Amino acid sequence: MKKEINITEVARKAGVSTATVSRVFNNSGPVKESTRKKIEKIIEETGYRPNILARELADKKTHLIGLIVHDMRGEGIPRSITGVSTVLEENGYNLLIACSNGNINSEIKHFEIFRSKRVEGILFATKEFKKEHRELIKSLPIPVVVMLQDTEKEQISYVTFDNYNFGKESAQKLIDLGHKQFAVVGGPMHSVNSEQRKKGVLDAVSENGIAISPLLIRHGDYSIEEGYIQTNKMLAAGTSFTALIAINDGMAIGAVNCLQDHGIRVPEEVSVLGLDDTVLAKASRLELSGVYYSYSELGKESARLLLKQIQADEFQFDKYIVPYTINLRESVAKRRHV
Amino acid sequence: MKKEINITEVARKAGVSTATVSRVFNNSGPVKESTRKKIEKIIEETGYRPNILARELADKKTHLIGLIVHDMRGEGIPRSITGVSTVLEENGYNLLIACSNGNINSEIKHFEIFRSKRVEGILFATKEFKKEHRELIKSLPIPVVVMLQDTEKEQISYVTFDNYNFGKESAQKLIDLGHKQFAVVGGPMHSVNSEQRKKGVLDAVSENGIAISPLLIRHGDYSIEEGYIQTNKMLAAGTSFTALIAINDGMAIGAVNCLQDHGIRVPEEVSVLGLDDTVLAKASRLELSGVYYSYSELGKESARLLLKQIQADEFQFDKYIVPYTINLRESVAKRRHV
Repeated sequence: MKKEINITEVARKAGVSTATVSRVFNNSGPVKESTRKKIEKIIEETGYRPNILARELADKKTHLIGLIVHDMRGEGIPRSITGVSTVLEENGYNLLIACSNGNINSEIKHFEIFRSKRVEGILFATKEFKKEHRELIKSLPIPVVVMLQDTEKEQISYVTFDNYNFGKESAQKLIDLGHKQFAVVGGPMHSVNSEQRKKGVLDAVSENGIAISPLLIRHGDYSIEEGYIQTNKMLAAGTSFTALIAINDGMAIGAVNCLQDHGIRVPEEVSVLGLDDTVLAKASRLELSGVYYSYSELGKESARLLLKQIQADEFQFDKYIVPYTINLRESVAKRRHV
Repeated sequence: MKKEINITEVARKAGVSTATVSRVFNNSGPVKESTRKKIEKIIEETGYRPNILARELADKKTHLIGLIVHDMRGEGIPRSITGVSTVLEENGYNLLIACSNGNINSEIKHFEIFRSKRVEGILFATKEFKKEHRELIKSLPIPVVVMLQDTEKEQISYVTFDNYNFGKESAQKLIDLGHKQFAVVGGPMHSVNSEQRKKGVLDAVSENGIAISPLLIRHGDYSIEEGYIQTNKMLAAGTSFTALIAINDGMAIGAVNCLQDHGIRVPEEVSVLGLDDTVLAKASRLELSGVYYSYSELGKESARLLLKQIQADEFQFDKYIVPYTINLRESVAKRRHV
């Protein structure tokens, strides 16, 4: 294996600190002439070349940003990352990403690794924002922006989607089409995003004086399979409904498949709407109605907000809510009067 | 902004090198008793706590691995990353990821950043493996494993899928079902993976003495839309076919949609097979036939191979080819004798 000399070894050979070696390279700060000559000789002999680390030591800026995410899979987070890296690149910053798999110990460890690698700011996405996260972030000397969570009450800067409002507005659109009997397939109950969407739906419904049977409010893990299973349970419950709202596309597709397998026509008998709009919606048996919000924009705005804080050199609570559009397609129709 | 004291500042205050401060923390190596006391006093006064960097300075191991990928989107790479991080975690290593967006300058820059952050090895996925990549990797003093490319002739360790063989075997299965008129929707022609699959298909066909019209070999960018567009062009060409093989699921779905929109029944008139098997296949209008290979396993094997090289402390050319299974479902049938 090829050996490479580093700044520490150059410093040791010269009997000086790494900071002194760094000053010689960067012609920054005072260095005794005899020390300079000695270091230059060692550099010549060893073939040492200053690397990024040496430059960093000189200008105290790494131009590195750390991003911690809880999951890489699915369509959203990878698109956000592309958005983040586009904006960072435009601004001369580089991005290092760590995946925590939603494990809090892994999250804390990666905050520490990023600090030790001297990132100038951290973007953070987690499944569930906890007290420990708040305390950790408040104790850091670098800015952090939370992605995909509302951290208003913790007063930590964040960028997220308008989950409550598009949930509410989507339900209202179905109500305006005459629907009065709703079924809802929510996501995991610990997910703030999913619960906010569900709350929006339920608020719209109740504000219109409509009641939903508790048998028709179920939860799944976002997969197509779970959408199928939960819809099956709702059909088995025997309470009829004419509109089904699923918290995401995958479960909406599972719902459509389940309804069709039971000979129930979509949208003639039941309208189906998913509260997002991914590539899955394009692949489904019929054109699924959904809500579009840009993960790429979420990434871009998160990066912009973080860079603003780094440049201002202060923590300043700030937030950005990504806009959305509701797309009614083949899977949704006016309620038929039976 | 809260100020945090670092090892360099402790060293400066004590008038010693950072290595000496590190030795005091880690109780490793000789330190004069008076120096130790002086450092301990400064530590107490400043509240300095040793961080990961300090520990690294002591044991020369960062237990960090770098991963450079060209794209985060799609189902495959995120699943590979999850596989990589599972194995690294089991072995006490941490992973930092960089996304190059397929830009060679960005790739080179991230190799340099990872080197400066003292990673012990690098996993590398790129769109197209070039001479510059080979030269860069050969010059590095740390091991590199290439993911998703065959770098046999460059003698650089790699882990990839058996693209040629599953392409060939899939085509053979359709030939065994009586098909003699084929259409192929390939991926971008610069993609080695896609071209190997296509070559497998074409070799199986020609080995069975079957000719394919050049009008029925087209290429797209992997999207559902492109699958639709290319199939449309093939239908317009007027040369009939009874089996269509697309290089991926997305384009196979586009092909199914296009055929159905032309009133052509799948699989009664045309069988369709996609040379992968992602979540999209589950969402399609009919159960798509495909080839399953585990991206998670690809990630795991890549990490294992890299750790083996780090532990052996030498570059040793090695490779792993991930196995596959071919799943014939609703979209494929025996050729009907017209």
